[in-house]
Amino acid sequence: MIKGIKIATTNCGIKYKNRDDLLLVSFDSLANVAGVFTQSSMPAAPVTWCKKNIANGVAKALIVNAGNANAFTGKIGEAAVQKTVNKVAEYLECSPEEVFVSSTGVIGEILNADLITLAVPQMFKNLDCHEDAWDKATKAIMTTDTKPKLIKKTCLIEDKIVSLFGFAKGSGMIAPNMATMLGYIFTDANISSNALQNLLQETTEESFNAITVDSDQSTNDTVLLFATKAVNHTQITDSHNPELKSFKEALHEVALGLAKMIVIDGEGAKKLIEIEVEGAMNKIQAKEVAFAIANSPLVKTAIAGCDPNWGRIVMAVGKSCKETSPEKIIVKIGDYPLAKDGAKHPDYIESLVHEYLKNSEVKITVNLGIGSSRAIVWTCDLNEEYIKINKDYRS
Amino acid sequence: MIKGIKIATTNCGIKYKNRDDLLLVSFDSLANVAGVFTQSSMPAAPVTWCKKNIANGVAKALIVNAGNANAFTGKIGEAAVQKTVNKVAEYLECSPEEVFVSSTGVIGEILNADLITLAVPQMFKNLDCHEDAWDKATKAIMTTDTKPKLIKKTCLIEDKIVSLFGFAKGSGMIAPNMATMLGYIFTDANISSNALQNLLQETTEESFNAITVDSDQSTNDTVLLFATKAVNHTQITDSHNPELKSFKEALHEVALGLAKMIVIDGEGAKKLIEIEVEGAMNKIQAKEVAFAIANSPLVKTAIAGCDPNWGRIVMAVGKSCKETSPEKIIVKIGDYPLAKDGAKHPDYIESLVHEYLKNSEVKITVNLGIGSSRAIVWTCDLNEEYIKINKDYRS
Repeated sequence: MIKGIKIATTNCGIKYKNRDDLLLVSFDSLANVAGVFTQSSMPAAPVTWCKKNIANGVAKALIVNAGNANAFTGKIGEAAVQKTVNKVAEYLECSPEEVFVSSTGVIGEILNADLITLAVPQMFKNLDCHEDAWDKATKAIMTTDTKPKLIKKTCLIEDKIVSLFGFAKGSGMIAPNMATMLGYIFTDANISSNALQNLLQETTEESFNAITVDSDQSTNDTVLLFATKAVNHTQITDSHNPELKSFKEALHEVALGLAKMIVIDGEGAKKLIEIEVEGAMNKIQAKEVAFAIANSPLVKTAIAGCDPNWGRIVMAVGKSCKETSPEKIIVKIGDYPLAKDGAKHPDYIESLVHEYLKNSEVKITVNLGIGSSRAIVWTCDLNEEYIKINKDYRS
Repeated sequence: MIKGIKIATTNCGIKYKNRDDLLLVSFDSLANVAGVFTQSSMPAAPVTWCKKNIANGVAKALIVNAGNANAFTGKIGEAAVQKTVNKVAEYLECSPEEVFVSSTGVIGEILNADLITLAVPQMFKNLDCHEDAWDKATKAIMTTDTKPKLIKKTCLIEDKIVSLFGFAKGSGMIAPNMATMLGYIFTDANISSNALQNLLQETTEESFNAITVDSDQSTNDTVLLFATKAVNHTQITDSHNPELKSFKEALHEVALGLAKMIVIDGEGAKKLIEIEVEGAMNKIQAKEVAFAIANSPLVKTAIAGCDPNWGRIVMAVGKSCKETSPEKIIVKIGDYPLAKDGAKHPDYIESLVHEYLKNSEVKITVNLGIGSSRAIVWTCDLNEEYIKINKDYRS
C-alpha cells in the first residue's frame, strides 16, 4: 500500500452495467502532484481543468470515470467538470482546484455529471486502503482494455523504503469510441511538485511518449504523478539530487512497464515490437525515424505475417530521414543483419529471420550512420482484428 | 494517338509469366521532358538516374520494367541501369542520358539487366503507334494493381488540337512487395522543358501529391511528362502563357484522374474519400490537417464501417493543428454538419450520416476557422483486405 491514500470505486451508470466505472482516490493530506497531457488542440474538458491546476502542484483527490470522454462537449462539458470537483471538494473541505479529474470513453456525447455527484457520498463512506482496492481502481477505469494494468515497485530514499504504485488504461494510443491513454502513479516519497514534474517529464519521454499503436493521439491523454510525502525522509526539491537514483529507476520501470502493457494490449495486437534507432544526429531525429517505422502499416502488417520484408523498413527510413543515404544505414531484425553498404547483407538468410519473427517480442534496429544519438520506441503488429474492432458500426 | 511516339511491350521474364512486364516508349525526335520524384533518401537506382538527367530536359526513350524495383541494390543496381540505358541508346543512336528508366516491384532484390537488354532488339522491331499500344503499355507496368489506369484528353493551343495521354500504376502510395506509384503523361504540344517542369510541379501538388493510401512513401515514385513538339504551334516557354489555359486544365484532369484511380484501386479499398480542409492559415497547414485525417487508421476504418464517428475526425484535427480550438472548427460529412461551437451540432442526426456513408464516394469537410486557405486530398477506406494483402508471407 501507499501511505496516505484511500480508494473507492463504484458503478455510477454512465455506460457500463455490472462493473465499476467510477474511481475516487483521496489523499489524507495534500499530496504533491505533477502531470503531462495530450498535445491535442481539442483537449477534453477534464484535461483543460487538470492543465490549469497542475501548476499549483497540490492534490487532495482524483476522480476518474469510464464510458464517456467528456471531450468536444463545449460549455456543458466544462460545467460537468466543475460540478464534479465541487462535490468532491465539499466532502474533503478542500479547494475544487485540488481535485483532479479524468474521463475516458466516447467523444462528443454529453456527460451526465449528476450520475457522478450522486455516487460520491457513498464512495466517501467506502474509502479503503487495502491492497485489493488498487486492483479495483485499475479495473474501474478500463474501456476496451482486455487486461488491467497495475505495477508496484519499492525503492530507497535515504535508506527509507518508498513505494510506487501505478496503473493505466489504454488499448491503443487512442482507441475508437472508447478512447485514450490514462496513467496514474502514486508514491509515498516526499518530493516537491517541481521536482516531480521534472521526473515525470523525463520518464514519460522514454515510456508513455515512446509508444504507438495506430499513430493517433487522444483528446484525453493524461498521466499524473502524486507524492503523499508520508515517508519520513528529507524533502527532495531538486530532480538531480543523487538520493533519487533508486527512485528514478523504479519510476521508469513503472512508467515503461505500463506503457508496454498498453502496447501489448493494443487492439488486435499479437506481438510487441521494439524499434531502436541509433547513429542519429540527435535524439529527436532518432525518435522520428523510430516512429516512422513504428507507425508504418506496411512494417506492422509484415511483422504480423512474420514476413522479413526489410524493404519496408528501408522505405520508412527513407521517408522520415533526409540526411542519411542507402550506403550509410545498417538494418537488423533481432540479431540478423539485413542491409549494409546500400544493398542486401551478404549473410542474410530469409528463413532464419522468418523463424525469428514468430516470437511474441521482436526487435528492429536501424543505424542511420550519421551521428551518435539513439532512441527506442515500442509498437505492436497490425492484424485484421484492429480493423474489425474499429470498423464495427456502433449499435 | 500522340504524334511522334511509338510503343513496344514484351515479357522479358523478370518475375511474371504470361503477361508483358517491360515497356519501351520511343520518341521519333528528341522530346522535352519534366519529372517529379520520391522525396525518399533511399531512392531506387533508376530514380537516381532520372533525377540526374531530368535537368537536361530532353528524352529519346523511356523504358520501364515491372516485378523488381531495383531499389536498395547498391552499385550492382546502378550498373543495371547503365546497362539498360546503354542498350537502348545504342539502337536509337542517342546519348544514354536521353533514355529515362523506371522499375517497380520488390525492394532489395538484384535486377538481372540481361533479361532487359536481351529483349530490347526485338522490341525495336515491334514498335507500334496504334491506339491499343497504349493499353498494352498501361498493363505492362502493373504490379498489384487490379485495374489498368489510362486517361486520354485533348485541348487547344493556338486553335490547334493537342493530345494528352497519361497512364499510371500504383495500388497504394506504396504497395507491399510490389511497390510504387509510377505515372507518365505524354503530349504532342510544343512546350519547353522548363515550362513543362513548372506545369508538372503545379499539377502534381494537387493530384499525385494529394493522395494517400497508407501514409507510406515509395523508394521509386516517379512522374514524368513528355512533350513531342509534333503539333505545329509556336513553342511555349513560359508556364504562365495564357495560351496554356486549356492545356493546363487537360493536364490537371489527366493527373488528378490517374491519382484518383490509384486511390480507388488502393489495397482493399471500397470507398473514395475526399477530404477538404478550409479556413486554414495557409495551404501547407490545410494540407497537413487534411493528410492527418486521411492517414488516420481510425477515421479510415470508421468510414469502412459507415460509422459517423466524427470524434475521430476531431481527434485528427486536434493532433495535427495546434492553432485552432474546439469552438472554432466546423466539421461536415457530406452536407451534414456534425460539430459546431465546440460540441455536437444541434441538427445532427446520426442515422442520416450513417446512410450517406454507404455511398462509394464520400466527402469530409473541416473548417479550421483561423484563415482562408484550403486544400483537398483523397484517400480510401481501410478494410481487412489491406491487412490480408500486406501480411501474407511472401512464398
